[in-house]
Amino acid sequence: MFFDQSEMVSGTDSKWKDECGVFGIFMNKPPASTDAARNTFYGLYALQHRGQESAGIAVSDGDSIKLHKGMGLVSDVFKTRHIDELPGHIAIGHVRYSTTGGSAVVNAQPLVFHYLNGMVALTHNGNLTNTLELRKRLATYGSVFQTTTDTEVIANLLARYSQDKMEDALAKCMIDIKGAFALIIMTEDRLVGVRDQMGIRPLCIGNLNGDFILASESAALDTVGAKLVRDVKPGEIIVIDKEGMRSLQVVHSPRQAHCIFEYIYFARPDSTLDGINVNRARRELGKQLARECKIEADIVIAVPDSGTAAALGYSETSGLPFEEGLMKNRYIGRTFIQPTQQMRELGVRLKLNAVPEVVAGKRVVMVDDSIVRGTTSKKIVQMLRNAGAAEVHMVVASPPTKFSCYYGIDTSRQEELIANIMSNEQIKEFIGADSLHYISMEGMFAALKNDADNYCAACFSGKYPAGIEATRINN
Amino acid sequence: MFFDQSEMVSGTDSKWKDECGVFGIFMNKPPASTDAARNTFYGLYALQHRGQESAGIAVSDGDSIKLHKGMGLVSDVFKTRHIDELPGHIAIGHVRYSTTGGSAVVNAQPLVFHYLNGMVALTHNGNLTNTLELRKRLATYGSVFQTTTDTEVIANLLARYSQDKMEDALAKCMIDIKGAFALIIMTEDRLVGVRDQMGIRPLCIGNLNGDFILASESAALDTVGAKLVRDVKPGEIIVIDKEGMRSLQVVHSPRQAHCIFEYIYFARPDSTLDGINVNRARRELGKQLARECKIEADIVIAVPDSGTAAALGYSETSGLPFEEGLMKNRYIGRTFIQPTQQMRELGVRLKLNAVPEVVAGKRVVMVDDSIVRGTTSKKIVQMLRNAGAAEVHMVVASPPTKFSCYYGIDTSRQEELIANIMSNEQIKEFIGADSLHYISMEGMFAALKNDADNYCAACFSGKYPAGIEATRINN
Amino acid sequence: MFFDQSEMVSGTDSKWKDECGVFGIFMNKPPASTDAARNTFYGLYALQHRGQESAGIAVSDGDSIKLHKGMGLVSDVFKTRHIDELPGHIAIGHVRYSTTGGSAVVNAQPLVFHYLNGMVALTHNGNLTNTLELRKRLATYGSVFQTTTDTEVIANLLARYSQDKMEDALAKCMIDIKGAFALIIMTEDRLVGVRDQMGIRPLCIGNLNGDFILASESAALDTVGAKLVRDVKPGEIIVIDKEGMRSLQVVHSPRQAHCIFEYIYFARPDSTLDGINVNRARRELGKQLARECKIEADIVIAVPDSGTAAALGYSETSGLPFEEGLMKNRYIGRTFIQPTQQMRELGVRLKLNAVPEVVAGKRVVMVDDSIVRGTTSKKIVQMLRNAGAAEVHMVVASPPTKFSCYYGIDTSRQEELIANIMSNEQIKEFIGADSLHYISMEGMFAALKNDADNYCAACFSGKYPAGIEATRINN
Amino acid sequence: MFFDQSEMVSGTDSKWKDECGVFGIFMNKPPASTDAARNTFYGLYALQHRGQESAGIAVSDGDSIKLHKGMGLVSDVFKTRHIDELPGHIAIGHVRYSTTGGSAVVNAQPLVFHYLNGMVALTHNGNLTNTLELRKRLATYGSVFQTTTDTEVIANLLARYSQDKMEDALAKCMIDIKGAFALIIMTEDRLVGVRDQMGIRPLCIGNLNGDFILASESAALDTVGAKLVRDVKPGEIIVIDKEGMRSLQVVHSPRQAHCIFEYIYFARPDSTLDGINVNRARRELGKQLARECKIEADIVIAVPDSGTAAALGYSETSGLPFEEGLMKNRYIGRTFIQPTQQMRELGVRLKLNAVPEVVAGKRVVMVDDSIVRGTTSKKIVQMLRNAGAAEVHMVVASPPTKFSCYYGIDTSRQEELIANIMSNEQIKEFIGADSLHYISMEGMFAALKNDADNYCAACFSGKYPAGIEATRINN
Repeated sequence: MFFDQSEMVSGTDSKWKDECGVFGIFMNKPPASTDAARNTFYGLYALQHRGQESAGIAVSDGDSIKLHKGMGLVSDVFKTRHIDELPGHIAIGHVRYSTTGGSAVVNAQPLVFHYLNGMVALTHNGNLTNTLELRKRLATYGSVFQTTTDTEVIANLLARYSQDKMEDALAKCMIDIKGAFALIIMTEDRLVGVRDQMGIRPLCIGNLNGDFILASESAALDTVGAKLVRDVKPGEIIVIDKEGMRSLQVVHSPRQAHCIFEYIYFARPDSTLDGINVNRARRELGKQLARECKIEADIVIAVPDSGTAAALGYSETSGLPFEEGLMKNRYIGRTFIQPTQQMRELGVRLKLNAVPEVVAGKRVVMVDDSIVRGTTSKKIVQMLRNAGAAEVHMVVASPPTKFSCYYGIDTSRQEELIANIMSNEQIKEFIGADSLHYISMEGMFAALKNDADNYCAACFSGKYPAGIEATRINN
Repeated sequence: MFFDQSEMVSGTDSKWKDECGVFGIFMNKPPASTDAARNTFYGLYALQHRGQESAGIAVSDGDSIKLHKGMGLVSDVFKTRHIDELPGHIAIGHVRYSTTGGSAVVNAQPLVFHYLNGMVALTHNGNLTNTLELRKRLATYGSVFQTTTDTEVIANLLARYSQDKMEDALAKCMIDIKGAFALIIMTEDRLVGVRDQMGIRPLCIGNLNGDFILASESAALDTVGAKLVRDVKPGEIIVIDKEGMRSLQVVHSPRQAHCIFEYIYFARPDSTLDGINVNRARRELGKQLARECKIEADIVIAVPDSGTAAALGYSETSGLPFEEGLMKNRYIGRTFIQPTQQMRELGVRLKLNAVPEVVAGKRVVMVDDSIVRGTTSKKIVQMLRNAGAAEVHMVVASPPTKFSCYYGIDTSRQEELIANIMSNEQIKEFIGADSLHYISMEGMFAALKNDADNYCAACFSGKYPAGIEATRINN
Repeated sequence: MFFDQSEMVSGTDSKWKDECGVFGIFMNKPPASTDAARNTFYGLYALQHRGQESAGIAVSDGDSIKLHKGMGLVSDVFKTRHIDELPGHIAIGHVRYSTTGGSAVVNAQPLVFHYLNGMVALTHNGNLTNTLELRKRLATYGSVFQTTTDTEVIANLLARYSQDKMEDALAKCMIDIKGAFALIIMTEDRLVGVRDQMGIRPLCIGNLNGDFILASESAALDTVGAKLVRDVKPGEIIVIDKEGMRSLQVVHSPRQAHCIFEYIYFARPDSTLDGINVNRARRELGKQLARECKIEADIVIAVPDSGTAAALGYSETSGLPFEEGLMKNRYIGRTFIQPTQQMRELGVRLKLNAVPEVVAGKRVVMVDDSIVRGTTSKKIVQMLRNAGAAEVHMVVASPPTKFSCYYGIDTSRQEELIANIMSNEQIKEFIGADSLHYISMEGMFAALKNDADNYCAACFSGKYPAGIEATRINN
Repeated sequence: MFFDQSEMVSGTDSKWKDECGVFGIFMNKPPASTDAARNTFYGLYALQHRGQESAGIAVSDGDSIKLHKGMGLVSDVFKTRHIDELPGHIAIGHVRYSTTGGSAVVNAQPLVFHYLNGMVALTHNGNLTNTLELRKRLATYGSVFQTTTDTEVIANLLARYSQDKMEDALAKCMIDIKGAFALIIMTEDRLVGVRDQMGIRPLCIGNLNGDFILASESAALDTVGAKLVRDVKPGEIIVIDKEGMRSLQVVHSPRQAHCIFEYIYFARPDSTLDGINVNRARRELGKQLARECKIEADIVIAVPDSGTAAALGYSETSGLPFEEGLMKNRYIGRTFIQPTQQMRELGVRLKLNAVPEVVAGKRVVMVDDSIVRGTTSKKIVQMLRNAGAAEVHMVVASPPTKFSCYYGIDTSRQEELIANIMSNEQIKEFIGADSLHYISMEGMFAALKNDADNYCAACFSGKYPAGIEATRINN
């Protein structure tokens, strides 16, 4: 895709919207230290690509929980003075791009609650598929909801079981909630990680000099200097307190269903999720593509940055040289002055520019990770032609995207997905390419070196391993 | 007092802190009109002296409720675009100076909740005396709390009774909650006003061209061009919907207990509360003072602005001319650069300045509404002496303030109240006046033309008509 | 007038616009001290009513000059960190409401220049009447102008004489520039004050524990704890350096022409300008009014705050009681949401409210300092009638304002001044009062206890003592 | 180098600081159109890498010039409302990273001046080498300076010749000023571009549908949809008005001296400067490096982003595969919370992360564009070793940087340049690489396919083609 995450903030184009990133740390530090908050800041910073709408950190010093959150990037929301006011040895943090719940600070996470047993802070990445049912059930018991987030539903559910021990309460919650979720929960004296029973959303465990960390991606561990211990298993509850770490396996599923789109587009290339390095996976996808479609061409270029790894793989296997034929402007502002229609026609190239010296007279293979609506691909193909490309062959490192995601990714509505409404031939015509090639389903799974049953590929296949909620709460 | 409400925002000195102001309106307007929000904006603006920490407005268009709130003055929090995004024919608003709950936007009001029967928005002025007990009881049933406000407790309580009709649910809530409160509640199709059974905190009903309004003070009605209908009665529930207004008298109390400090300091002079105009009341207090203490002097001056009406009354009765001997700087910033110790000694006069041409060589009667810690009075007396005043006689339009308030006013702690720890003679010495006179309890009630049993005067007498909560929740 | 200075910031109504305030201090402090900047901050804060558009402070530590300035109130522009970055023992400051030059930070003062002899910082209150001629002359010599301020013209003129000693250069400048001005100039090692040859704009000298201060008004001296030494004389240059203070009398004028509007409206009541205390002057104006027009009435009220002193004087002489019949909302935001037309008709009263309990059934004398366009007076009279006033008699503590000011005050254009286009009878009809009385010219001068020739009263008489510039530079 | 331009804003590390970018456009549009400002906005946005400290745009509508500028990125400084307030058919803009002059908005460009012949706006990229001498000479004539920029000196110089025709005045200025400069000047009715006589700083001419553009780099032309016409020649003055474009060749130099660092690091890869495409140049540098130093290794990686093109070239010629072994975090905030010392030791990796799956067990050739102080290279080498790299060979696509730049680039001081104080062997030891290879001077020029005399390579050779100013003005 043309628009990588850094452009997400301007919200002006069709693209996959990243969902959320979570991070938590339990440190053997005095409660007055701000190192837990500081490490969480760095961890969130490393997960910024997973959500740019809001950011928040909650800390516990053993007695009570403090919170700071706000709208914007991690580095906008947190200044030194905010970290200084967050002493404590346990911390959890969250970056968010809304999937459910509107765009307001009240929906920003972590959410912090007082309940019968004290205070609890929650962060959540994913999407429950029975939110509405749970809200109704809880409201009947007298619950009130200030936000429209799944997280508040989970908190109220937890409070229902407040007569139980925390572990038991969590186990009961896991039986109640359905869908895709990676949760990090903090009480005054404990850090807890929970992953849905199919492991749809990622969550891993790290070790920083003896202290434990939970994070959406391993790149967040690298950023703070921690080592990856392992991934949280599907259906597993990880509890970390001063006694150390222990595991509870509450629910079991006959299959796993790791989100395949994390590998194709979402996750950082330097992350390793459920045993597979993302950069390697993308390069393998590119190699596989080169095996599937042999094109008579002069050079291979990528739509930066998300197509680069696959393009390099394609180049390696095909023997065609990799060139930088498209250049990105690295300075993306939060708001942007719109060009006039005439400027659009003149070809204002704000975010991407084709380099004539590279592409002129060349038969070009252009590699991108996926196509959503096709309008951006169309513009890029035109730009390459204007720069003198003799031929433009588009190859896509994922199968046609035909179905919406209900597991935490804010894709376009199904009727806007070009592969849902056009044939490949029509798409080729629409974007103006000389040829168009998608990787095959089999090829994709082969590149990921793994059983197809290990993944959720619902966006390509329409087979939703954890079902879909009938009606979505509306507000 | 020296520091009137406009200085409250700088938070640098001893003073009474205003509590909260509430406003609500039900209009016969199309749901797309923003007039309800706009009138609420003006109403809050008129009530700004009751709270400068945060401001918020929620509106209903009949189907759902929208909310905007933030930290700061009404005119800081609301710009035209915010009002434009608040269409609806019902609106409620709030200005807040925290009494319980910390200083964070999460504690700002209105609070908006989803519950079994839909959405509800609440605003509250006052202080419950059984918050802790109610929170415990609700938590046992599984309630969670995101804020530390009484308002959230009331919302959860209301949700407990969600199987009842709204009026019945409210009636049951009124039986549960104790203390001082003026509530305005909005559902999708209704506006509700509730006042505690002794009428401690003020709440009145207005009529704007046929539409009903609820407000803390009648000056807010004047500001939007509405007429005062009457005050909400102690223990009364007022329900306003498309059928009009109706009254439910749920609880009865053998006595009323209107906060006497509203007349002495808090309320706007142009408001009329429970039948008594505030400006008239203050002028009467000044007249009574002149009758109680006859002083050989040349002029009467006020500590502006809160002492002015009493000073004019004193002048009228005593025959001594009223002069402007102290001038206030009207520009008070939110934050302020502190003077050095040496500057303090040189007498930096940032907020108040004595006018030598007025006071030099004169025997001055200085009238203020009350004395809290005495440090400010001391500075002013010294300033007048430096300006050449021959004598300074301080007269105070309220009795000695010896007790803290537990009904919604954030007074200093009892041990900081100078009248609690010193005799009048000692206070006189401390502030450096030639003489010091407080109005008598009897004189105060006489000036208010009413039975002493009509008022809560606990800050002077220590007699708390609605009791005190044993332990306050701590956070 | 209805709109006092605090409302100026909203810029929504007819009113006199304050011009500028200047402040300077030379301290016997180590160059690393920020006391000079800090005192200047307080001084500007005391002069805030003279300009709310921008604020700035420049300091010298003996070697070089540092500057901070910005748009907004003094307390908005200066935070502690800004003062901390302004070490030095000499400082000058400025608050501005533009008279010439647009509203941009580039026009904010002080202006700091490098020139042949080092650095110089300038602040200016007033309006030259030969700016255009001077700019043309200087441009012919090769001068360039980055702003449209008189201050930059003066700086360039000074640089023309850079071969002279500073005092001689200043003396030559005083021969060149015409009009109304009070200048404070700082070089690396010197503070200089200059006042135009008729003393139109005010400037006084203070002593703070041995250190010298220059300021527009004596209230700024009081604020920092300094004593008023004397006013700078018309045509005088005051030079302050480590040797102390010395005076140069460069130009002489056969007459003085102190701006009479400083006494009527602009200056703070607690300031004493050229020997006359402003509060006393206003009270005398009120007394004189009472002698000139005897009205059968019950009470006297003021349009707060600028009419209060005159109303008290009127009350004292007439024997009619002074009452607070109009209440002001003290919270005026920078921007404001506009009421709809319908709301206007319903009488939205955002800034001022009439108190029915005070005025109902009464024959009211309403005192204001002046009338500009009359639209505000009309609204207030109507408001009083709505509140039940039996009669409203408007008395004005200045003669009819018929002419624009060219000496530093941004009055309305002449054709907008109601007294320029209507007779008194017509104005009375327009504002809806039962009677209307202006003080007489003779009465005004009598109240100011001084020869009429001492004042510039051009706004009333059309006689401009320092002439008018033919064409004003346009930008 | 590790820190590319996007990180410049955080100002936390040793790096080349980009200087300035300039853009101007003359449109055949009605004066009320904001297209000129809008295109300038996009042009500056494309040049953002050349300066992130401040941004500004000035427009002329034929009669007068309007200006908006501020501190920060183009997209921070300009919102839609600012563009809307900049109607006019001529516009110039500037992005700045200060070389001379402090970091304050007063030094932001464009600077706009009134002078004898009207108004003029100036923007400047470069550094004069006789600023001090010119300032002294101008001050003797009576000039004053409000900023410390070269631009103001040029404006004053221009005004000296205001009796001449604009072209003649400019020609005289070009005789006076020495050093490196690319100027864009706008009068009410004209756009002018000027380039120093050796062409040190870049400036090119574009054509947008018949309208002329001037810009620092051709990528800015691409961004707005314009075509590159040609570069402005050294010593040439380009005048564009309603008659079209004309050229004046005022000064001639025996040699050209294009800044070679534009190709190595500064300019965008998609720009073509003086006939050479930057991406191609960098790729050639990489190829040449591969020819100069043959290393036994497994993979080639780049320090992103500035090392990527050279690394691809190295890969192509050496046959070693190119891999993404270092990943960049694309989210760089303006301010940043600093890690503690302990965190540093644990290896907090905020901006760059090594990918173990790529580098583990591999002999790695790491390509960067240059080395400044060496501290960053040292960290990266260590990071690669921690990630398991078997060997790390650093190759640098420029010769050792031993000398400071005096022509508009804010390099580190000479004594901080590691190549100035250490031998190559010592640098290798310092950074901890297994080997270290710089490209040779001959190799560099060969890669740039051009005569060495065409370039300024003073940072490598110490030979300053336009001399150095003896003393720099200090402020």
